[in-house]
Amino acid sequence: MRNINEDTITQAVLASMSQCADERLRTIMTSLVQHLHSFAREVKLTEDEWFKAIQFLTDVGHITDDKRQEFILLSDTLGLSMLVTSQNNRKPAACTESTVFGPFFVEDAPEYDCGDDIANGAKGESCFVRGRVVGIDGEPVAGALLDVWQSDEDGFYDVQQKGGGGHEHRARGKLRTGADGSFHFRSILAEAYPIPHDGPVGKMLAATGRHPWRPAHLHFMIQAPGYETLITHVFRNGDQYLDSDVVFGVRSTLIGDWIEHAPGVAPDGSWMERPFYTLDYDFVLNRE
Amino acid sequence: MRNINEDTITQAVLASMSQCADERLRTIMTSLVQHLHSFAREVKLTEDEWFKAIQFLTDVGHITDDKRQEFILLSDTLGLSMLVTSQNNRKPAACTESTVFGPFFVEDAPEYDCGDDIANGAKGESCFVRGRVVGIDGEPVAGALLDVWQSDEDGFYDVQQKGGGGHEHRARGKLRTGADGSFHFRSILAEAYPIPHDGPVGKMLAATGRHPWRPAHLHFMIQAPGYETLITHVFRNGDQYLDSDVVFGVRSTLIGDWIEHAPGVAPDGSWMERPFYTLDYDFVLNRE
Ligand SMILES: [Fe+2]
Ligand SMILES: [Fe+2]
Repeated sequence: MRNINEDTITQAVLASMSQCADERLRTIMTSLVQHLHSFAREVKLTEDEWFKAIQFLTDVGHITDDKRQEFILLSDTLGLSMLVTSQNNRKPAACTESTVFGPFFVEDAPEYDCGDDIANGAKGESCFVRGRVVGIDGEPVAGALLDVWQSDEDGFYDVQQKGGGGHEHRARGKLRTGADGSFHFRSILAEAYPIPHDGPVGKMLAATGRHPWRPAHLHFMIQAPGYETLITHVFRNGDQYLDSDVVFGVRSTLIGDWIEHAPGVAPDGSWMERPFYTLDYDFVLNRE
Repeated sequence: MRNINEDTITQAVLASMSQCADERLRTIMTSLVQHLHSFAREVKLTEDEWFKAIQFLTDVGHITDDKRQEFILLSDTLGLSMLVTSQNNRKPAACTESTVFGPFFVEDAPEYDCGDDIANGAKGESCFVRGRVVGIDGEPVAGALLDVWQSDEDGFYDVQQKGGGGHEHRARGKLRTGADGSFHFRSILAEAYPIPHDGPVGKMLAATGRHPWRPAHLHFMIQAPGYETLITHVFRNGDQYLDSDVVFGVRSTLIGDWIEHAPGVAPDGSWMERPFYTLDYDFVLNRE
């Protein structure tokens, strides 16, 4: 350790962890240090570039608070989130695929009954969503808990709204499937939105020639005893960003058709003065 | 991009940067994404572990402020800082080696004349430091600017002192070499200290079975026109942590002898009532 140099430092760092009692942690830290050092060697990272990286991470840390998680955005935009999601959610082809969780979920969304309007004042064209939750053999999953969340027509989730409204939940809610595994609710049309790009991650995207947009989607988390929890989106067919999602979340099997209808009778029997949309999408859960 | 999976996502992320106009940035980001993904694949990173990493980085960001730079501590303790320092400061064997900069340098240290006491009230045994700054052919470097900084006997730098004292600079200062390249000043004895370990980096060290200590050292930054700036430490011979510096900064050529003297006449002619120390150390700068 008194004569560490450029070539021996990686082994010295690994050796320093020889007393690590947590074997899994040691495995992770060993790989992390090896790849971190390989990266710095491979690009011949300069001291200026190292310092810019320190400043970048500091900025990411300082913009992060209860409402905004810039480290998750960073992980998402570097494809790490989707990679981790994929490698931890391998399942039979018949099951609905998983995609990224994203930073806009909240624990305590309001509970609704099937048929309710979860928009709660969120701006957007009306949309009626219907589907079923089934198991891999087609059996209905009764009483499954659905968390649904989405942005409004301006591309903002309720948690991103500044001032006014306090902690009001909009365009998000919890629902349960009926005895036949079915669910239905009213909300608003999903629209494409840019991820928050007024911070360091936005600067990184601009500097690397990338746009910050996600194709329109509706988030679902579906939980039921005996089944693997499914965290996924349904993406809107026809969206211009389906081939360039900034967080790499699109799966062709997760693309659904939002169908536009002329003013008239909605699926819930109400009279719509304006055009409205419907989405039908079924989910197949994997056994636990 | 509609059918990205675990195996194809890395290429998809790299392809997303095809419009990056800054070639160097694209090189760096390409290597970063490849190593980040390889790491996640190699250890089969779980979603729980990913989330703990997000929380860890968030904690690192939140404890970082004007006075405390936890990202630099993280880089230091993972050996990245020393690797970057080494690979950017290759020089002839005759030159003084570089080591890590560390997070405790300040820009506006007070200016002193040779012979002054830079301790300015910092606690510790008295120490008289002398040396010369020369070029690779032995020529004296006159008027070289030395920045010197160190911790006190409790292991704290002035910038770490909480409350009281405001912005007072202690045990740090700027000095210039004379016409013969020599310098001398009074300060306090360098003592071993733990890096700040009450935050996330300290938790990481404890979890991986590592101590947070650095062997006693005195920081130098030496600048002179026509020469490469030298950022280094002198380490105290005999220190118990010379073989396990938490930031991997020790070089055998940077170890100096602090010699203890009985009470009596100090090198500056003053009468010392207590034992005192001397350190003699010369620096050899590389040509620019
Ligand atoms: Fe979203
Ligand atoms: Fe230090």
